Amino acid sequence: MFVLVNLKTYPCDPVAVADAVRDVDESTDARLAVAPQAADLARVAETGVETWAQHVDPIEHGSNTGHTLAESVADAGAVGTLINHSERRLKLADIDGSVRAAERAGLETVVCANNPEQIGAAAALGPDAVAVEPPELIGTGTPVSQADPDIVEDAVEAADNVDSEVSVLCGAGISTGDDVVAAGDLGAEGVLLASGVAKADDPQAALEDLVDPL
Amino acid sequence: MFVLVNLKTYPCDPVAVADAVRDVDESTDARLAVAPQAADLARVAETGVETWAQHVDPIEHGSNTGHTLAESVADAGAVGTLINHSERRLKLADIDGSVRAAERAGLETVVCANNPEQIGAAAALGPDAVAVEPPELIGTGTPVSQADPDIVEDAVEAADNVDSEVSVLCGAGISTGDDVVAAGDLGAEGVLLASGVAKADDPQAALEDLVDPL
Amino acid sequence: MFVLVNLKTYPCDPVAVADAVRDVDESTDARLAVAPQAADLARVAETGVETWAQHVDPIEHGSNTGHTLAESVADAGAVGTLINHSERRLKLADIDGSVRAAERAGLETVVCANNPEQIGAAAALGPDAVAVEPPELIGTGTPVSQADPDIVEDAVEAADNVDSEVSVLCGAGISTGDDVVAAGDLGAEGVLLASGVAKADDPQAALEDLVDPL
Amino acid sequence: MFVLVNLKTYPCDPVAVADAVRDVDESTDARLAVAPQAADLARVAETGVETWAQHVDPIEHGSNTGHTLAESVADAGAVGTLINHSERRLKLADIDGSVRAAERAGLETVVCANNPEQIGAAAALGPDAVAVEPPELIGTGTPVSQADPDIVEDAVEAADNVDSEVSVLCGAGISTGDDVVAAGDLGAEGVLLASGVAKADDPQAALEDLVDPL
Repeated sequence: MFVLVNLKTYPCDPVAVADAVRDVDESTDARLAVAPQAADLARVAETGVETWAQHVDPIEHGSNTGHTLAESVADAGAVGTLINHSERRLKLADIDGSVRAAERAGLETVVCANNPEQIGAAAALGPDAVAVEPPELIGTGTPVSQADPDIVEDAVEAADNVDSEVSVLCGAGISTGDDVVAAGDLGAEGVLLASGVAKADDPQAALEDLVDPL
Repeated sequence: MFVLVNLKTYPCDPVAVADAVRDVDESTDARLAVAPQAADLARVAETGVETWAQHVDPIEHGSNTGHTLAESVADAGAVGTLINHSERRLKLADIDGSVRAAERAGLETVVCANNPEQIGAAAALGPDAVAVEPPELIGTGTPVSQADPDIVEDAVEAADNVDSEVSVLCGAGISTGDDVVAAGDLGAEGVLLASGVAKADDPQAALEDLVDPL
Repeated sequence: MFVLVNLKTYPCDPVAVADAVRDVDESTDARLAVAPQAADLARVAETGVETWAQHVDPIEHGSNTGHTLAESVADAGAVGTLINHSERRLKLADIDGSVRAAERAGLETVVCANNPEQIGAAAALGPDAVAVEPPELIGTGTPVSQADPDIVEDAVEAADNVDSEVSVLCGAGISTGDDVVAAGDLGAEGVLLASGVAKADDPQAALEDLVDPL
Repeated sequence: MFVLVNLKTYPCDPVAVADAVRDVDESTDARLAVAPQAADLARVAETGVETWAQHVDPIEHGSNTGHTLAESVADAGAVGTLINHSERRLKLADIDGSVRAAERAGLETVVCANNPEQIGAAAALGPDAVAVEPPELIGTGTPVSQADPDIVEDAVEAADNVDSEVSVLCGAGISTGDDVVAAGDLGAEGVLLASGVAKADDPQAALEDLVDPL
């Protein structure tokens, strides 16, 4: 399982969380990574943890003041990027452009989407993975596997129907190790986490609990 | 073949073009329709021509000042709508929402996109049809069938791979009747036209030439 | 006082509300108008009521599929337009462009904004009027004059500081005739209304109550 | 004069340009600063040069994946930020929110705008400075002082009319030291530079030429 800890713009110490993710990564079979803000990428990557960007823009080198260039986040140490997170929705043509930009810079890509139809659409753009984030579960603490297990299975089927090489992650409703296992049983090859680790009093302990059953 | 004449915000008389489209429609086997601005829908529909909207928003009845409600364009006489035209690109989640809104109001849907990958993505959202609009051909007068015939065939294949019930229209590079025939030969079930008819000195004659070979 | 009834995308009968607004307008010294959706402009204007658009785009005649052209809403019968309503926020450069487009088409302009600073900014673009819409009051039923009277006075002062010819409307928190009077006492030259009239069982009675003290 | 070198997403080495800007800053009375991409802020700031962000979002700590938090760019070493650059236009309400976010994080603010009307609007939001960027001059090499000197004087007057404490920078059309002097003569207290320095074969020499007459 791939476990990606999204730090959003939380008031956490990104280096402290990165250290915790790196340490837990060394003691589990799961693959762990952390996605800080662009301004924090370099110091997070220096910890040795697998580092992801939260977003890249559909641009090339040039006159794009205030935008996020794939090459620059790669230079700062990112090896992958989220695209179209529910908090950073993009136009369809720009998701396509951002996936192309990320590929050009050698970044792995996870395109987020709301429901199985949009997951099929995201998969058609050829990212490495898609993440299904039912809006009604984001931040609720309700595990997706209990609230609406069909949505994960339907997302896996929708992605597989379009492109069988695109993995599916579960992007909301993951609070416990059992949730991670349940997501895997439903066909997900990974999960996105956020507040459960990033805002925990002890991020390392929280993460250890999450990956313990894997 | 379905021939949809998009009036954009051209300085044409929408009722005069609508009359022309209706008259030609009565003398051809092709299915003809016209897409005026929202403010012109009612008087265009009154001509008896098949009337389409250029856009609907992903909204329901409620507090959405300045937005385009699918039910209202249907009430004004539209029977279908373009979504995500290259001049009105939407977020992926909003294309999904606009297709759902259009279905709810009984409108037929054509989702536009740039290239075969995005056509596959659009098809995954379950519209009635998709229209491929290569940005490099829009408004150039170069027929898509000559400039890049692969893009139409690839779009047809991409849509078919995702959902075989979704038709494909050719959304740019159509200037002559031969272009329409060529688009059909490449697998398109219709075409989007704009300036070639709407800005013609004699829209009726221009349209007759276009549908003559059908 | 100018009283503008915004129909948003409410499930009301726009012609019935327009008839009511026109009838009340004939029996009061206040100036009354109604702002329907673009697709409803023509049939609302046919009632004889003063008709406003809810939005225009910063565009000219041309290739702008799915956008709202100032000339077209004027042709449909609008004599004015809202710009930058809280439900249709625009980029600063586009508010400027929309005001210019509206002027070009002979439409009166009301630019909406959230707070006194933004009201000053809106006034600097030279519209006919600005409307202050504190987000915390929209749709709450709390009258602006009670909840936060300073915001209206501060908005009047901010607009006056920038351009003394720009009127200020009160764009939220108006439910009763007393609220309208209070807004006027605070320096507003008009009010924006929405659900209180458009969703009333008897829009004419609701509007008569509102303008009764004027 | 304040001279801000915007690195956009150019394929330059941000640290090399930063070193050059810092070195020139030590030998001139002008105040020099550099604005790299968010991902490059930390290593640019480490050079000791005055470092600016290119953009901040109108957000606080929280669930804002893929956005730029003012506190984070400040932590990375930025002391100021551009807002609403012509390549990153924002909604009026979001310019207001971004100025407030920057103030909260202790960042100096420069809000960009197209013309004197929008400069007045930007000034009404209370930033430290505004920068006038006539779109027709950006990247053309034509000096603003020759092409349209009125626009700088009108911008200075517009800002002064709204808030006399807001400085005005000249944000386009600056290629030579004479242009910088001319901008100052027209009332500008600084200039924004980009390709002339960032894409120069020898950024230090280019910058020395620019500040030589100051």
